[in-house]
Amino acid sequence: MTYQSMTDEQLISLRGSLMRQYEIYASDGVKLDMARGKPEKSQLDISEGMLSAIAENGDCMSDDVDCRNYGGLDGLDCAKRFFGEVFDLNPDSIIIGGNSSLNMMYDTIARAFSFGFCDSERPWSKEPKVKFLCPSPGYDRHFAICELFGIEMITVDMQKDGPDMDKIKRLAETDSAIKGVWCVPKYSNPTGVVYSDDTVRAFASLNPAAPDFRIFWDNAYAIHDFDKNIKILNILDECEKSGRPNMPLVFASTSKVTYPGSGVALMAGSAENVAQIKKLLAIQTIGPDKMNQLRHVLFFKDRAGVAAHMKKHAEILAPKFNAVTDMFEKELSGTGTASWTTPKGGYFISFDSLCGCAKEIYELAVGAGLTVTKAGDTYPYGKDPNNSNIRIAPSFPPIEQLRAAVERFILCVKLASIDKILGERK
Amino acid sequence: MTYQSMTDEQLISLRGSLMRQYEIYASDGVKLDMARGKPEKSQLDISEGMLSAIAENGDCMSDDVDCRNYGGLDGLDCAKRFFGEVFDLNPDSIIIGGNSSLNMMYDTIARAFSFGFCDSERPWSKEPKVKFLCPSPGYDRHFAICELFGIEMITVDMQKDGPDMDKIKRLAETDSAIKGVWCVPKYSNPTGVVYSDDTVRAFASLNPAAPDFRIFWDNAYAIHDFDKNIKILNILDECEKSGRPNMPLVFASTSKVTYPGSGVALMAGSAENVAQIKKLLAIQTIGPDKMNQLRHVLFFKDRAGVAAHMKKHAEILAPKFNAVTDMFEKELSGTGTASWTTPKGGYFISFDSLCGCAKEIYELAVGAGLTVTKAGDTYPYGKDPNNSNIRIAPSFPPIEQLRAAVERFILCVKLASIDKILGERK
Repeated sequence: MTYQSMTDEQLISLRGSLMRQYEIYASDGVKLDMARGKPEKSQLDISEGMLSAIAENGDCMSDDVDCRNYGGLDGLDCAKRFFGEVFDLNPDSIIIGGNSSLNMMYDTIARAFSFGFCDSERPWSKEPKVKFLCPSPGYDRHFAICELFGIEMITVDMQKDGPDMDKIKRLAETDSAIKGVWCVPKYSNPTGVVYSDDTVRAFASLNPAAPDFRIFWDNAYAIHDFDKNIKILNILDECEKSGRPNMPLVFASTSKVTYPGSGVALMAGSAENVAQIKKLLAIQTIGPDKMNQLRHVLFFKDRAGVAAHMKKHAEILAPKFNAVTDMFEKELSGTGTASWTTPKGGYFISFDSLCGCAKEIYELAVGAGLTVTKAGDTYPYGKDPNNSNIRIAPSFPPIEQLRAAVERFILCVKLASIDKILGERK
Repeated sequence: MTYQSMTDEQLISLRGSLMRQYEIYASDGVKLDMARGKPEKSQLDISEGMLSAIAENGDCMSDDVDCRNYGGLDGLDCAKRFFGEVFDLNPDSIIIGGNSSLNMMYDTIARAFSFGFCDSERPWSKEPKVKFLCPSPGYDRHFAICELFGIEMITVDMQKDGPDMDKIKRLAETDSAIKGVWCVPKYSNPTGVVYSDDTVRAFASLNPAAPDFRIFWDNAYAIHDFDKNIKILNILDECEKSGRPNMPLVFASTSKVTYPGSGVALMAGSAENVAQIKKLLAIQTIGPDKMNQLRHVLFFKDRAGVAAHMKKHAEILAPKFNAVTDMFEKELSGTGTASWTTPKGGYFISFDSLCGCAKEIYELAVGAGLTVTKAGDTYPYGKDPNNSNIRIAPSFPPIEQLRAAVERFILCVKLASIDKILGERK
């Protein structure tokens, strides 16, 4: 029976019993957290072999390079070969960075503002206006970079197989102030959407009004499958074919492969993009940590080593995702109050309440000792036009705590939904 | 006998015998390198304990933080305490970065251009002109950052105890376009100069015309003494006393303590500077590698551990510096053709030929299979007004190769000097 079909009396009575439970939660001092896409401890433990992958001085050489010393501005050759194999990238297209792929994205935007891209007419800071297309719900940290640089964000709806490509095409091809688009093409944050081949091809066939339009292809969950390995089309190859090789910039990292606190980030692009970035990097830095690159290569050895490792992550993560969606199904299915995604990989579940309820759910959750991603954070400027989306991150809490957290969350959803329905009937 | 006091015949005869030796060098295929301040292999070997400092999962916790996971944007508390002790800095004033302190300097300039400092009237990119004071000879990578951002560089002479502070005061206090100054206050690159207490106090007492003037205090060789530990005044303390706490920004790293290819960089500043930078970092990055910070802390344990370690470096480096200056003394002293510094630490010897000879010496050296830092590189825009300064980096070659390199270098100096003197007599 949907809440909408219940009488006022039924809803008020239900609300009363839910509130009694809520008050217990609100006063029991329990703190639970489903806010961040953080691996849990046991996921970190499976990378223990990393710690001794380089054990003595003799281990520090690679391709005649002493990884302890200066050099290797854009990464070790062995690391480029290894990551090329893992992420289906040409080693020559790769630039390796430090611990944070977000930092590589920030740097790319910062360099565009200060110096422009290889095909820019001028640095972006000299443009009267810079705009980005932001498929949403999306990743708040992408939007935060835009906001910091004063980039105007245009929300584009996410659909089942990627963003609304008609809208992206229409906007990018007519407005030369639109300089880029943010994409998380596989297990998108937070929807879990995997871009279809048609979506990738539609991106590659864009003919943007801005000559230096860039697709920021944040492939953060490229190998983070729960079950079978889902492959998406390679955006670099597709854009090469379509004659716009400089359009895409791919980002990836081992943050959720080995350690978020000690991973290796990388980016990849066309020969022209790579050449320009390397030229600027030669002034920016003496180069990233080479020992940690080597550590990754020695620990994993090859693509098969990584695949076996990712299977262990999946064995820890998949049951958590199932626990959340099973509880949603059992408690919310048929109530007419919510919908949610059931991703096959990645780190997030996207939850949609009735329109106008997300903020109240968030506030109620905080009151019940539960932290979830702040309502609105999945949209540009923190403004969810429907006030309905909440990102759920099931990875960090141990499964029993996760179940307790979801129980509280569901209670908050029910309470907010009843308030909303009753409010509308007044 | 000085070359200047020799007759043409004597000089021509000397030139003939020197040229015969030069031709042997030019054709023997030997390649030697004194260009870069790179530690040699045996210096890297002494940090072997770093490799196993974190050996198993249980080692990864610090102050209840799992260093493998997300968090710690500005560094681990234990690392701030440790580096605070080592570099005489308040732990709260420290922001820890990745592998490259140069990257932290670049980022600081880049942020100033995009967003300004806490006391800027506007972002530097909106200023009609930005200028920097550049004590010279100095570090080419500092100058390269300025050039990239279009910062006009003003050369200031280096003296025995630091830069010409009268000139710095006069310029900084009258021209509000002057936004900063580059300093390597201890064992300055390349002169080896150590700033006197008067010099540090003169910096602290500056009253610059620009409200957001910054002293970039690149303390790269803070603990890199050959013999006794030389202490310089703490610029942060001095500027606190003088009422301009936001003026200095200190940079340091373990590039030449542990590994240039896997070190830890840091910066330090006033509470206001740190707060502004942290706010921007929260958007820029998920944070630097925490495991490498922990690895350093566990390996060294404390300041005494670092001091014992730096003694081992000194035992390798000091004999090399002595070899170079002994050979200069023996071969060039009294010839009237050259002067050089005899630093008590750091990585460089600054060599000055007769005016107008540095480029020819460099070219001759290249012809004899010897790489030294390019003539001019120690000055803004690569333009040494006297064409006389060459940076010598004795650290990387094993001592026998170093001696062979210096032998060739001296030969080139003699040849260029004779050419110069004969040319002037024409």
